[in-house]
Amino acid sequence: MGNMPRYVTHIESAIDGTHFDPDQIQTLHEGRPLWVKYDLPAIQSAVDRQTVMNRPPNLWRYRELLPVGDVIQPVSLGEGMSPIIECENLGRQFDLPNLLIKDESQLPAGSFKSRGLSMAITMAKHFGVETVAIPTAGNAGGATALYAARAGMESVVLMPSDTPAINQIECFLAGAKTFLVNGLINDCGKLIGTAKEQTGWFDLSTLKEPYRIEGKKTMGLELAEQMNWKLPDVILYPTGGGTGLIGMWKAFNELRELGWLESDTMPRMVSVQSDGCCPIVRAFESGERFAEPFENAATIASGLRVPVAVGDFMILDAVAESGGQAVAAAESGLQHWQRQAIAATGISICPETAACIGALEKLRNDNWIKSDETVVVFNTGAAQKYVEAVDYSLPSIDRSQSIEEIIQQIEATALTT
Amino acid sequence: MGNMPRYVTHIESAIDGTHFDPDQIQTLHEGRPLWVKYDLPAIQSAVDRQTVMNRPPNLWRYRELLPVGDVIQPVSLGEGMSPIIECENLGRQFDLPNLLIKDESQLPAGSFKSRGLSMAITMAKHFGVETVAIPTAGNAGGATALYAARAGMESVVLMPSDTPAINQIECFLAGAKTFLVNGLINDCGKLIGTAKEQTGWFDLSTLKEPYRIEGKKTMGLELAEQMNWKLPDVILYPTGGGTGLIGMWKAFNELRELGWLESDTMPRMVSVQSDGCCPIVRAFESGERFAEPFENAATIASGLRVPVAVGDFMILDAVAESGGQAVAAAESGLQHWQRQAIAATGISICPETAACIGALEKLRNDNWIKSDETVVVFNTGAAQKYVEAVDYSLPSIDRSQSIEEIIQQIEATALTT
Repeated sequence: MGNMPRYVTHIESAIDGTHFDPDQIQTLHEGRPLWVKYDLPAIQSAVDRQTVMNRPPNLWRYRELLPVGDVIQPVSLGEGMSPIIECENLGRQFDLPNLLIKDESQLPAGSFKSRGLSMAITMAKHFGVETVAIPTAGNAGGATALYAARAGMESVVLMPSDTPAINQIECFLAGAKTFLVNGLINDCGKLIGTAKEQTGWFDLSTLKEPYRIEGKKTMGLELAEQMNWKLPDVILYPTGGGTGLIGMWKAFNELRELGWLESDTMPRMVSVQSDGCCPIVRAFESGERFAEPFENAATIASGLRVPVAVGDFMILDAVAESGGQAVAAAESGLQHWQRQAIAATGISICPETAACIGALEKLRNDNWIKSDETVVVFNTGAAQKYVEAVDYSLPSIDRSQSIEEIIQQIEATALTT
Repeated sequence: MGNMPRYVTHIESAIDGTHFDPDQIQTLHEGRPLWVKYDLPAIQSAVDRQTVMNRPPNLWRYRELLPVGDVIQPVSLGEGMSPIIECENLGRQFDLPNLLIKDESQLPAGSFKSRGLSMAITMAKHFGVETVAIPTAGNAGGATALYAARAGMESVVLMPSDTPAINQIECFLAGAKTFLVNGLINDCGKLIGTAKEQTGWFDLSTLKEPYRIEGKKTMGLELAEQMNWKLPDVILYPTGGGTGLIGMWKAFNELRELGWLESDTMPRMVSVQSDGCCPIVRAFESGERFAEPFENAATIASGLRVPVAVGDFMILDAVAESGGQAVAAAESGLQHWQRQAIAATGISICPETAACIGALEKLRNDNWIKSDETVVVFNTGAAQKYVEAVDYSLPSIDRSQSIEEIIQQIEATALTT
């Protein structure tokens, strides 16, 4: 490693503050997640905003604020610097002129999962891991399979039998050892948890190692840079495991300590779920720091089908510190909000983000979000990956008709958004 | 428009050089495509490479070299600056250390179609078009629907009944007037061609207006910038309608005239098709400038299922001028090459690009590509969008077995790439 620095000081338990060695591979402490902690004064001396901004447009431009520092070679597919898009048309529908969407569908494998898994697999490779394993019911499996392939590592992916076809296919194509399990994602997680003791597999489950947070943190770093280092008033974020919300809140605090922000005003973080699975919202509403498991979870937004989040207290702490909320959108409205938002913006908005549009509608009706506030919604994946979530049928044209009849049919077809 | 410049001098017929007014909307001349021509000396005075490189990372950073200039507001979803990824592992399999893939799957809607349609719809909007129409059998429909939604325009999309489900869904979600037609893509095209006379729809079919080429041209501009203004020795590009290959060759010539290239050596352009539909390859092999229609076209690479290309002579001219080739890969090998390439690179390579891997294998075996040459392959779309092209089944795990049995099953499963 020579004299090149890595700015991590230690790994720290999120539940009780115990310190751990950052040069050893780490997982959980007392069954709860770990934070990566940095030497922020050293980073402050080593790099400034302009230097970062002159680097290539991917998430590794923030390397001093990431576990790799100047030392560790990233396992990369060019991820990061997803665009932030002004949405005037959609904003008008909510009397909200300053509405923006950060479009994570434009990452490798079409979802925000690439950020966390690029980082976790980079670090796993650094620590000599040969096989990674993950339970998944959606996009995390594909990202794992692809980054493991990129790293030359073996991956084991266990998924419920009803996992969307596209998520099955992306794992298969990348050469992951992919299996369908007669159970739910937590059953898959338990199998990996038991098997890893005997096999040496490294468990990449959400928050079961400390680096996926650091990858997701880059959503917050990019957002700050793209908004000229002045954070928005409100962020709406669809919350399954919550790594992204936790990571962004960590990013904002690190940027504030570094002195990189133009204003000390922090955004109010809104954790959005579907009422088909909303353990975080229930805990928030009853003032609890830990969430009860959500029974009979059911939502077309597969990324929100997370009945138990090991980082529940980290999500709820961030929401509370920020003066935010946890809001459940109606499952019955997701398809409507998805089409409304795509037709108004042109962005391939996924069902999880459709829940955020529902939450936005509610929070504007309540005037909890004011008309003059700047609001950022995260689109965490591409609509195209959710074939099973779309209830559609297309009209047919019979070519044997006259062109006049065909034109009449086309012009008479109402847009149903 | 004030004093802000637009650097377009005129529109020019590709078949006979006739000039047309760039301030009017244009389509075809004598049934053949048009070029957009620029005042390159004026561009040379107005902007330099460093200025471009300091702009935000999307394709609009090249605006002086695009029809918008400093005048026309882009209809944008943040497209462009797709990463270029070094592929050491895959390169090793072909004894080719300098193999790179430019990954267009990371664009809006998961394909390179976004470049051309962002540009075409920007210009259509500029010229006051209210409804755009397109025939599609793949990714072009979704990109049209999304950019039309972004622009606040109406779109009509006609597609064969057997169009992949994801391409149907993306049009539906974006609120396009989408119809299934009992016919092929050229039947859909004919319907639009007839109906547009009576309806005023603007036809966005491949090369039937001059601006999709200008959008696709940005693949070449980005490639030059990302390779420090020194072009590779060989480019492999999957060719359906050929807009991208034509556009890149135009870009390289414009950059050379501008004096922005570090070397005058131009890449050898390889037009790749599947032997299930290879009209360009047949024309190339028989030394013709125009291609015969390919009967009974059949390939899982839906973007290559183009039996008649209106820009055939433009593709073949570029290939010839560059000292390149047109090569057909075996349809029967596409699934193998796709998995081989994804497992070796982690990139979500589509079936069209799998054909390029087959062509690469052949051209290395023939030593037409030398081991020390630098080769760039374009991945034109996300594998995830081609569910129907993947022939797969995943093994199941029964949770009622013992963990030892489960581990044994997983470890005994061979990777089948």
